[in-house]
This record gives sequence, C-alpha cells and structure tokens, in this order.
Amino acid sequence: MKKPTIVMQSDFGIDSGLVACMHGMCRLVDSELETHDITHLIPAFDIEAASYCLQYTVPFWPDGTVFVSVVDPGVGTSRKASVAKLKNGSYVVTPDNGTLTYLKKRIGVEEIREINEEINRYPLTKDVHTFHGRDLFAYCAARLASGVISFEEVGPAYPVEEIVCHELKCAKISEGLVETEIKSYDPFGSAELTVENKEFQEAGFRIGDKVRMVLLDGEEQILDTVIPYEKSFGYVEKGEDVIFNDLASYVTIAANEAYFMKKYKLDPEKTYQVRLIKE
Amino acid sequence: MKKPTIVMQSDFGIDSGLVACMHGMCRLVDSELETHDITHLIPAFDIEAASYCLQYTVPFWPDGTVFVSVVDPGVGTSRKASVAKLKNGSYVVTPDNGTLTYLKKRIGVEEIREINEEINRYPLTKDVHTFHGRDLFAYCAARLASGVISFEEVGPAYPVEEIVCHELKCAKISEGLVETEIKSYDPFGSAELTVENKEFQEAGFRIGDKVRMVLLDGEEQILDTVIPYEKSFGYVEKGEDVIFNDLASYVTIAANEAYFMKKYKLDPEKTYQVRLIKE
Amino acid sequence: MKKPTIVMQSDFGIDSGLVACMHGMCRLVDSELETHDITHLIPAFDIEAASYCLQYTVPFWPDGTVFVSVVDPGVGTSRKASVAKLKNGSYVVTPDNGTLTYLKKRIGVEEIREINEEINRYPLTKDVHTFHGRDLFAYCAARLASGVISFEEVGPAYPVEEIVCHELKCAKISEGLVETEIKSYDPFGSAELTVENKEFQEAGFRIGDKVRMVLLDGEEQILDTVIPYEKSFGYVEKGEDVIFNDLASYVTIAANEAYFMKKYKLDPEKTYQVRLIKE
Repeated sequence: MKKPTIVMQSDFGIDSGLVACMHGMCRLVDSELETHDITHLIPAFDIEAASYCLQYTVPFWPDGTVFVSVVDPGVGTSRKASVAKLKNGSYVVTPDNGTLTYLKKRIGVEEIREINEEINRYPLTKDVHTFHGRDLFAYCAARLASGVISFEEVGPAYPVEEIVCHELKCAKISEGLVETEIKSYDPFGSAELTVENKEFQEAGFRIGDKVRMVLLDGEEQILDTVIPYEKSFGYVEKGEDVIFNDLASYVTIAANEAYFMKKYKLDPEKTYQVRLIKE
Repeated sequence: MKKPTIVMQSDFGIDSGLVACMHGMCRLVDSELETHDITHLIPAFDIEAASYCLQYTVPFWPDGTVFVSVVDPGVGTSRKASVAKLKNGSYVVTPDNGTLTYLKKRIGVEEIREINEEINRYPLTKDVHTFHGRDLFAYCAARLASGVISFEEVGPAYPVEEIVCHELKCAKISEGLVETEIKSYDPFGSAELTVENKEFQEAGFRIGDKVRMVLLDGEEQILDTVIPYEKSFGYVEKGEDVIFNDLASYVTIAANEAYFMKKYKLDPEKTYQVRLIKE
Repeated sequence: MKKPTIVMQSDFGIDSGLVACMHGMCRLVDSELETHDITHLIPAFDIEAASYCLQYTVPFWPDGTVFVSVVDPGVGTSRKASVAKLKNGSYVVTPDNGTLTYLKKRIGVEEIREINEEINRYPLTKDVHTFHGRDLFAYCAARLASGVISFEEVGPAYPVEEIVCHELKCAKISEGLVETEIKSYDPFGSAELTVENKEFQEAGFRIGDKVRMVLLDGEEQILDTVIPYEKSFGYVEKGEDVIFNDLASYVTIAANEAYFMKKYKLDPEKTYQVRLIKE
C-alpha cells in the first residue's frame, strides 16, 4: 500500500532553502515518501491564519494524510510539539499553539500526543534549536508516514480538552439578520465574512434573495446597499456586488471581476463590521 | 504503465490553500496520481497570459500529460467547461474561454469535449459554485488521468472550430522590416515582442545582424538605436542592448544584466510599438 | 532501486512557465524521475546567494541527489557548464561561475566535469540559446539521474582547483571578540552574520552568555547594547534582542517576534559591521 503523503504549510516564505530542507528531511528518513505543500506564505506568526487554512484544505486530501503546520513564534521554548489524530484518520504535526482550533471544531480531534524529542527529533542537529520545522516536525512526520513509528510511539497522549485554541470569530445570527465581520480577503479581493454558509442558510437566507448589506468601519457607515445572494460572482454583471458561498464554507462578498476590497478602498489592516438583512 | 502527470496553472495565487485543494482532489480520486504546477501567479482573469504560458510549457512535458488551466472570470455561469485533446496526445482541462488559443495554433486541437457535470463533477460540494478549479476541473482531470473515465466519457464532443479564441497579437512583416509590439516582460525585465523567431528569420534577419530599433509610445519616439541580433544576451557587454530568440520562440529585446524595462523606464501597463529594420 | 531525485533552484521567478519547462524536460528524458524545488526566487544574477542557499540545503537531502542550480548571467557565452560530484555522493549541475564555492568548502568536491554539449544538450531546441536551464542543465541532470549516462559520460573532467569561486565573507575572530558583518536577513527579519556557529564557540562564546553587541554603519555607531546568546529567539521576551545559532550554521541576531531589521531600520542594501564582545 502507498505510504501517506506529507503535506506542509508554514510562514517560512519561499525565497530561501528552508522549505526544501523540510522536504529533504522527509526523504532522509524514507526516500520513498512523497511530500507536498499547502502554502508557506502564511503571514509570520499568524496562528489563526494557519488554523483557518488547514480547515478547508485537510478535507480535500485522502484520510490518513500527514500534515505538517509550522507557524511557531515559541520555537525552542516550552509550548508542546504535538501530533493530532483527526477523526477522519489524518494527522497534523504541529506546535500546539492554536493551529488545531478550526480542525477540532470542524473535523474533530480523536487523540493528541506530545512528541518525545528523545526519540523523534533528528539527532544530527542537536546544536540548532531554531528549526523545529525541519529537525522535529518534518522528521517526526516522516517517521510516522513511513511507518518507522506508530502513532502511539510519537510520545505520551494528553487530553484533547487541553489543546490550545485561539478565539473563534463568529457572527451574531437571528432570523433574517446576520451581524458579522470581514475576516480576510481572497486572491481576487473578495471579503470573507465570519459567518458560515450553513449559518447563513439557517438564518433564512436563500440563493436568489436580495440582501441589504450595511458595511461599517467602527461607527462610520461606509455602505448601505442591496445586493443579490447568488451561486457565484459570475451571476452578476461585471463590477457589481454579490454575496455567495465560498469554497471554505464561509459567506463571501465580491464585486465581479472588480476587487471588492479595492472598489470600496477597504484597508486590509482594519476590521469592518457587516450587517446582512433579508429584504 | 505510469499514469500521466497532472500539471496545473491558475490565477489563484500561492498564499492560500486553494491550489493544495486541487492537488488533494486529484489524490482523492486516485492516490497514485502525480501532480505538478506551472504557475498560479497568472494575473487575475488574464486569459491571454494563461493561453501564452501553456503554449511554451506544454511542448516540454511528455505527450499524454493532462494539463489543468483555470483562469475563469465566468465561473459558475454558462461558459463551457471542456477537455481538449491536443494533436500531440496531451489534454487540457479548462474553461473554454480563450485558454486554448495559442495551443490550437501551435500544436493543434484534435478534438474537444464539454465536461458532463452530472458525472464528472465532485458530488460532495454541490453547494459550492465558485471553485470549479477543485470541484470540476481537477476532479475531471484526475478521473481522466487515472483511467476512471476515457476521453469519450468526459462528455459530448463539439466542433473544434467553436473553440473560443482571444485575439492573437501579431506583427506586420516585410523584407527587412518588422512592425511589432512589446507583449510582456520576462523575469529579467526583457521585452518580449509579438513576432515569432521564425517570422523574424523569414523577414531576412540573421544572427549577427545589426538591427535598427525604433521604440514608440504612441506617437512619441522613445528610442532610435542600432543593436545586434545575437544568440543570447551574454554576447554583448553588461548594460548593452541585444535582440535574441527567446525560449518561447518569440523575439526578445534585453539589456544584458540591466533590466531593459527599467533601463528605459517602460511602464508595464502601456503598449509600446517596436520597429525593427535591417541595417 | 529508486532513482535519485532532481532538486532545482534558480533566479527564474515563479510567475511564468520557465520552471515547469525544466521539470517537464526531466520527464521527457525519463517519465519516472521525481523533481523538486529549492527556490526560484534567488535575486537575479546573485551567484553568492545561490551558493549560500545550496550549502545549507544539500546536506538535508539523501546522498546521491542531483541538484540543478541556474543563476547564470553568462548564459550562452564561454563559462563552463559543469557537473560536480560532491564528497557526500550528491551531484550539482550548474554553470561553474561561483555556485560551488560554499559547497566546496563545507562538503568538498570530489570531481568536476564539463558538460559535453554535443551529447548532453537537448537536440530539438538548437535555435534557442538562452534557456540552458531547460535545454542543458535540466536535460543533463535528468540523463544522469535516470542512468542514461554515467558521471564519466557527462564530459571531460577538469581539476577541482579550477572551480570558479566567489569571495567568501568571513569574520575576524579572537578570544572573546568577533568582528563580523550582517550577511543577509531571514524571512523573519533576523540578521545573519558572516561568522559560523562553531567559530563563535571557538572564540569562547557559550549559550547563556551575555554579549556586548556594537552595530556600525561605516563609522557611525547605531547600537551598543548587551544581549543574551540563547538557543533560540523564544528564550527572550517578545521584542527583545537575542543571538543564536541559525539553521544554516551561522550566528544570527534577532528581535523575538519583532523583525530585527525593521526594529533598527536597517537598509537591506547596506553592509553593517557587527562587533561581538564577551562580557
């Protein structure tokens, strides 16, 4: 049977050899392992972004895949280095610093173990304490994926309830009214909200509805308009606004081929409130 | 026999999990499939750039390779989702919106079929209409590459003449005179022209020739100079200008180690005319 | 036995099909070859950066790996196109223009051969002289990795002493005093110095020491402070400075989660002197 693929993400950037050292390390353990990337352009130290990125990527890889996620401001200190076994059978090798938050909620964590560094840390770089991505996480992931160790041999289990979670941004939802925030922007400048598609549906919104959208920067109202809730941005004219279900199962507002973010001069550093009201 | 590799390009960017979802989807279909990337930094919605990028990349992958190209401003609307079989035996899975223009001219399309979404669309994400890259194109490509479906089972064929093509920029060519445009810039700031190497040769230009180059911004003349036509930029002194055949079989003007674009303060958003005259 | 992996780096950028042409070329030679990347964002023409990147990446791939490094300002001219066999059994296929400098010092070069372009150059692109990355280096690497040619069949050997080396920046070291420079910055804005970890240790510095750091921009003193030498940046408070051993075996100065480079408004284009004095 084919060994599970190792799939990596980090905030290491892609203009150095750091990521390649992690891929190489996996092959030092077992030259037959296949490795792959999610992204290594997660904003530096942004654990919430790492957590969010995993939650919509993990479900599209085969059960049993071994993920490595390294956004690790506390490298070399006392935060736990862990391997989580998800309820779908996939693994996540990561500092336990919040990375697992969304996955725990969406897929569920069956069991979590702290990596025993005596056994599962690359022995030849003992004088380097700053590249756990290579020396600890990739190395341990490769040992697990190749079958050198079982999940039990990762190290001691600890209670799933002790997993470190970041705060989950969520929306205030009632019949026909959703009070939410812009969470981030996709590559096309569309605004991803902190409300899930299914929550939006539960609040009574249906594809084809007209939705009143009020966009606020603190107290200041930026926009008060009515826009359609459609299957995709392609359902409105070029330049027009539209609400749709995004691929990560969150509600998104876009301007078709017109960068919603730029159209309304939104500042990606700011947090905007969004009120969605069923017309 | 080894299954064909799936090779992808898009305008999805590389700072999210979008591309990894497409790679994962291929393995959900068949864990033995190998996937690879061309680039995912095609400018957003730039179909012509996607078309151009494919034409010089496809010939350097084995015949039978399955390419996926997703630059798709009309996602979720009525544009056809298609699979083209090229005359070299490779396949291109793409929205039929212009992506195939250069390939049709250069390699030729043997047959094209519209994807039957009843069969060849991932069934578990029916409520998401905005990620055909993952749910339709990657999924269908994986089914084809793995042998789950034959090319005939993609869906109904339609006439090759109906393939949507963008306008092809071309040069005005006569003996010893080429009137062309700057089409784009390579990573080293060199200007790629809309004239093919072989057209340039047919107009009577030969390696070693001196060429008078007139560079125009509309009516305004920016440059009127004589530069050599050489095998490579390395044949002139550092900082000097040179004309050569580029790797994609188009004629290029460069300044050796000196970023032609920056040297003459060219604006990448503008279109410049270039007149090349045999001395 | 599994064929060696081909691992590539260049200054070609990642927004075009150039890199994919190199990967595809390897599969044209042998569809079973596995290829991988280090980075293709090496600054254009920066041979020293290519050399440095290889030296810390090569040791983390299995012995026998075939590396391809193409930063090649002199493409198409008389610089030698070569394959070096390292003392660990890995190969580097590269223009011999300085790329091998750090590897020669750190791992050692056992033998070097100039590529015979009559045999080991892709025959179907004879009219293109500007893409040796694809037509010569990737092609020759693939022939070597797949076993089509032996190392001897690459071409004639020449003396290891003739390998082109760039100047190696090094530190002035005495007991308790190191005079060094900032060499580059990592993705987190930390300053990498031109002194190796082991040289620093030899000068008498030990983990846990306090170190007086004087930072100079030419004659001007920017900083005179005492900071700890720790295992990792995580050992100091957020925002505080720290010295540690970096992953590439050089000494680094960082500000924990605070971008040392930005904190002191250092200009990445300038060269700063650093004096480290044992307290």
